[in-house]
Formats: sequence, C-alpha cells, structure tokens
Amino acid sequence: MTQRVYLDWNATGRLRPEARQALQDALALAGNPSSVHAEGRAARRLIEGAREQVAALVAARPADVFFTSGGTEANILALSPAIETLTEKRPRGPLLISAIEHSSVRSGGRFSRQAVTEIAVDGEGRVDLAALAEAVSGTTRPLVSLMLANNETGVVQPVAQAAAIVHAAGGLLHVDAVQAAGRIPCEIGLLGADLITLSAHKIGGPKGVGALIRLSEDIHLADPLVRGGGQERGTRAGTENVAGIAGFGAAAAAASREHAEEATHMLALRNLIEDGLRAVAPQTVIFGAGAERLPNTTLFSLEGMKAETAVIAFDLEGVALSSGAACSSGKVQPSHVLAAMGVSPLLLRGAVRVSLGWETTEADVAQFLRAWRKVSTALSKRSKEQRGMAA
Amino acid sequence: MTQRVYLDWNATGRLRPEARQALQDALALAGNPSSVHAEGRAARRLIEGAREQVAALVAARPADVFFTSGGTEANILALSPAIETLTEKRPRGPLLISAIEHSSVRSGGRFSRQAVTEIAVDGEGRVDLAALAEAVSGTTRPLVSLMLANNETGVVQPVAQAAAIVHAAGGLLHVDAVQAAGRIPCEIGLLGADLITLSAHKIGGPKGVGALIRLSEDIHLADPLVRGGGQERGTRAGTENVAGIAGFGAAAAAASREHAEEATHMLALRNLIEDGLRAVAPQTVIFGAGAERLPNTTLFSLEGMKAETAVIAFDLEGVALSSGAACSSGKVQPSHVLAAMGVSPLLLRGAVRVSLGWETTEADVAQFLRAWRKVSTALSKRSKEQRGMAA
Repeated sequence: MTQRVYLDWNATGRLRPEARQALQDALALAGNPSSVHAEGRAARRLIEGAREQVAALVAARPADVFFTSGGTEANILALSPAIETLTEKRPRGPLLISAIEHSSVRSGGRFSRQAVTEIAVDGEGRVDLAALAEAVSGTTRPLVSLMLANNETGVVQPVAQAAAIVHAAGGLLHVDAVQAAGRIPCEIGLLGADLITLSAHKIGGPKGVGALIRLSEDIHLADPLVRGGGQERGTRAGTENVAGIAGFGAAAAAASREHAEEATHMLALRNLIEDGLRAVAPQTVIFGAGAERLPNTTLFSLEGMKAETAVIAFDLEGVALSSGAACSSGKVQPSHVLAAMGVSPLLLRGAVRVSLGWETTEADVAQFLRAWRKVSTALSKRSKEQRGMAA
Repeated sequence: MTQRVYLDWNATGRLRPEARQALQDALALAGNPSSVHAEGRAARRLIEGAREQVAALVAARPADVFFTSGGTEANILALSPAIETLTEKRPRGPLLISAIEHSSVRSGGRFSRQAVTEIAVDGEGRVDLAALAEAVSGTTRPLVSLMLANNETGVVQPVAQAAAIVHAAGGLLHVDAVQAAGRIPCEIGLLGADLITLSAHKIGGPKGVGALIRLSEDIHLADPLVRGGGQERGTRAGTENVAGIAGFGAAAAAASREHAEEATHMLALRNLIEDGLRAVAPQTVIFGAGAERLPNTTLFSLEGMKAETAVIAFDLEGVALSSGAACSSGKVQPSHVLAAMGVSPLLLRGAVRVSLGWETTEADVAQFLRAWRKVSTALSKRSKEQRGMAA
C-alpha cells in the first residue's frame, strides 16, 4: 500500500499532540462549567485556561474571547448590524466584504442581501484598497469584513492599511484570521482589527470549536446568535464544548510557541514544491505568486488540467490535496476567488491546492512531486493525442 | 479525602466508554468531511455512521438528522417562523411554549418576543392541555415547543396528547427531548413530534454536539442559523465536529441498547433516595411526585433550607448536585419551573436536584443520604436556635 501524504492542511489540520492530551484530560472530567460544585469548577477552570491561551495567540485579553462552535459561527456572530461601541449604538451598515471571502462571510451573516457590497481584488488576489476607500466614503457606520489570508491562494491581505481606511470612515473591521493564525503573526492590535475570527482545527486543535475575539470591551456583540443562556457572558448560550475548548487552548499555546519555526520549515518545503512543479511542467501557473502569501499554501494550475480529475489522480497516488475550498460539501462550482482575480476559465478549472502543516516532511514533498510527474505526464500525453486527433 | 459522588447528571453526564473510544478514534484521523480524498471520505463515513446511530435512538431516518453544536443551538434552529411544510410555506406563528421550558426555548429563537406565548402548567409541573387547546384555537399556523421531560423536576409532559391538539389546529410541534433521551423512549413518531432536539452530553456523549431531527423530509428548515456552507444539506454550515459527532453516535447506540436496563437501575436507586430523604426529614417535599417522572431525577426542598447553601454543604461532603438548572452561568435567580407550578417562595428557594446516571451506585446513594442527614440536622438545629432566639 502506498504511504499516505496529507497536503490539505488548509481544509483541516492534524491534531497537535498537546491538543490531543488536553482533550483526553478534559473528557475524563464530569462537570458542567455552570455548576457550582467541585466538578463544575474544574470544568470552568479548563475553559478559562484555554481562554487565556487563545487570547495570547492574538495578543488580546481573555475577557475579549468568545468561544463558538467554529470559524463559520464566529463569522456569522460578528456580522450583525447590532454591533455596538461605547459611542455608537445605532444599527450598523452596510456590510462591505472583499470578493474572495469565505462562504460564511459571503452569506452576509445577519445583514440582508441588499446590505452587502463586494470589494474587488487585484490580479494577485489582494483587496483593492482604492475600491474599499471609495465604498466606505459614501457610508456612515460600515462594517467591513476582510480575511487576513485567503484559504485558496494563501495571499495575505493588506489588513492594517484597510483598517486605517475603515476607521477613518467611522467603520468597524472584522478580520477572518482562520487560515492565517498559527502561520503568520495575528496580533489583533497590530492588524487594526476590531473583531477577529479563529478556528481551532486550522491551528492543530479539534474541529467544532472557534472563537470571536474583540479588540476591547468597548465593542459589544448585542445580537447573540445562539441564545438563551448566560454562557460566554451572555454572548453565546449552550453548555460549552469543554474538551474541544481545552484542545483549542492547547493548540493555541503550541502555535504561539512554534509558529515562527514552523513557518520557516513550511516555507522551505513550499519552495521545493513550487520549484518542482515548474521543473516538471514549466507552464505551471502559481496564483498570487507576486503577492505576500502564507508560507504553507500553493494554488497552481496548468491549461488542460481538470481539478477534480487531478485531485482523484493524486489521491490514487496517496496524496491528499484539494481543488480549492473544502467548506461546502456536494457543491462543485468554479472558485469565486480565482474568478474575482480575473483568472481565465481554462486555468481556473484546473486549480489545485497544496497546503502544508507542521508535520509535513521532505519525504512528503518528494512523494507529491513524483505524483505530479505522473499526473502532468498523463495530461501532456492526452493533450498531444487530442492535438493529433484534431490534426 | 472524601470519595466524590456525582449526582448532577441532568447538568451533564459522564462520557460513556463507547463514546470515548469513538472520539479517540476520530481524533486520530485527518480529513475534512467535505474533502474528496481518502482522508475526507473517512471523516464523512464517521459522520454518516453516527447519523444512523442518532436516528435509531428516536426511530427517525438518518436523512432527517441535522447535527448542531448542542441542544441550545438545535432549539434555536427549530424555533423560526420560516419552517416550511410541503403544503404550507407562509411564515408560521405564534410560538407557543410551556411555562417550564429551557432558557433556549424561552428565548423564543428567531421569533419576536411579542410572538411568544406561554402555556401554564399544573401543580405537578405538567403542561395544561386545556390551556394549550385554547391558545392554539385562535391561531392558524402555530409552532408549539414542549419539552418531553423537565430538566429540574424530571416530570414527563403529555406530549402525544399535545401533538393531537397542535396538529388539529394546523400547527407543528417541536419537542425538546434533551433530558428525556436515553432515559425514556423517544420515538419521534409515537411522540407525535414534527421536530425533536437531542444533546449528546445528556446521553453519555461529549459536550458541544446535538441534533435537530425532523419527522420527515416534508418539513423544511428554511432559515438556517449558522449559514454559509453546504454542510448538513445546507441546514447547518461549518466544518463538522467530526470527533464530537462520532462520540454522539456511539453514545446514542449505547443508550438505545441499554436505556431500559439503566432506567430500572436508576429508578431503584431513586426510590432509595426518596425514601431516605423522607426518613431523615419527613417534611421533605418532592416536586412533581404525583406525576410521571424520569427515573433518574428528584427535585426536593425543605422549608428553611437555602439551595445555594445546601449545594455547597453537599459539595463539602463530596456530593455534587445542583440547585436546579446549570445552563446559565452566573445567574442566581429563583426557578421559573417551580414558580410556574405555584410553589411557595419558602420552599422554592430550598429546591435541590439529585439526578442519577448509568454509573450511579448504591454506595453513591448511601453517601448522599449520610450527607443529607448532616445537612438537614444542621438545618433543623439552626432553625431551633432561631426559634429559641425569637422566643
């Protein structure tokens, strides 16, 4: 049997050993964190410890961290006209988002469809700051939502510059940092974000946990999504996912400690991958290559390639990778990210994403490149045959 | 050190060994269930296997199970004016709920406050069916939400009779079966429910997972709460809590297999508890004792007792129990359940809940009764002293 190589870390990562241990320890405890007895208090301590660890990853205060069931829920919680600040309690709007946001942000959250406006990106997949400035200029209390790094291309967005534009217009900035966290620095203050979304399973924690984090207590999430109990200071009801939160905390602590070293490691491997891709097939296009990108992500294509076929061919060679986002089961449709970047349909339908993690090795890269040789050779053979038939 | 005795299973239960194993196995897998590669397909299989196990617990079809982050989220998902049926797609309302529902149902979900009406309960804590009939008579498309068993008293509600009333009026019935599942039969068809809510951690699964289950595909949840991805057939977006769902499935399978035997076991122990409570303090009041109750729950009080003090005294004796619901951290307020039952303030403030689980032993009961002897003796001594001082 072929050894499996997992290169789809942007879809979901492996659990870090520290997170696994924290989860197992938490699962051994009985106790509802809202109960006053010893068992309840022990569960509460786990949550508050994890809150400190998650806060530290983005240099926020623990009291500003609200745990959710994941990044999607955190995004929907953030995107409400009812976000209040100390000085501004009237409904907020419109919602401005970039054209390359995650589907949860594209849904508009609790804003009506008509209240959502998309901001264009350039050919490298960076949000167009001039377009953003123009869009906010006509508004009074906009909410702007930008991802820190795109899940498909890995392109890092000019969030701090966007923040200056948004704040000058009296707006608030929400930053979806799901893909960026643990890979590049995400200090909420340095980003200029008012709210930031994290997901545990993208930093080595379990699936089913995330957080919405605010810059300060001046920001009030006045419109809870999951409501009816006092948990998370009234912002998110329901018995807490104690084990999941403990695992999230442990993963955040490991990511805080190790992300710089891991980033160096992943970048070296990614350079091997990109050199290898082009060595085998010089016409390979790497999207966003002219922009700052996450150290772990390569989205590439080749004319004539079909992503679905390529993903299956790689899978048969033991390599797990993806044809873009993995967030919408069952949907097969062209990437809105590449479409927004103006990529031609011929290249767009061949886009394949390789995304690395802290566990990725040189041997994994070598196996990927062997598979790429087979996949691209089969492709070029087929395309020669087709030209032959056409001739 | 005193051995700890955990008697707060209605707040949260211990993880069943089968659930722990399923969780650990799932945590060892990489793979996003939405990914097409082998790792993704393996994660998908875990979820679909769990869906079958959870469906079996309530005799539903797997395709009618929608996983959520817990019972609270499932309740909020259910309570929307936009629940459609094959024949009725106009907005639904009002929302009628009993006066003893969980705080998530009392929040009204996505209904406005004005659209929510409470139905009274009798002195035993059963919903008043005549009042329900009167309330639905003036409506055309009501949504009614009733719990199958109350979390504080354990009193089982006349849900099947309520269903007949609701359906005759053209209404839909949502049943919060969070506390009942795994303790009494919960077949969705026999209950007459159109929608039913379950929570994993109340049946021996992990915290942070639940499900909303519909009677048939004729019911369409047209108003997703967590939106933006195609997961759960478009009804609940976000990467699935794979390990939590696997644990939920394993717990459901164990509960399906063992709940009858466990119920007999718990009922025998509860009878020992109630006999013992009264033997020590004959004035002890057991709420809902005249009604059908879950086999594991006793809510009792004694005049002069303060629940908060009693819970702490029991905790110091090694016994974890509660002063009612544990769902709202930080809130200390009198039970709306007992208030709705017309319990006098003097008794109400002393209400203490003992709730048993599949792991509870006779030795646990003996330790609880020893603690009760101490707590009630101290109480009666203090009350004699107070009478002495007053004289």
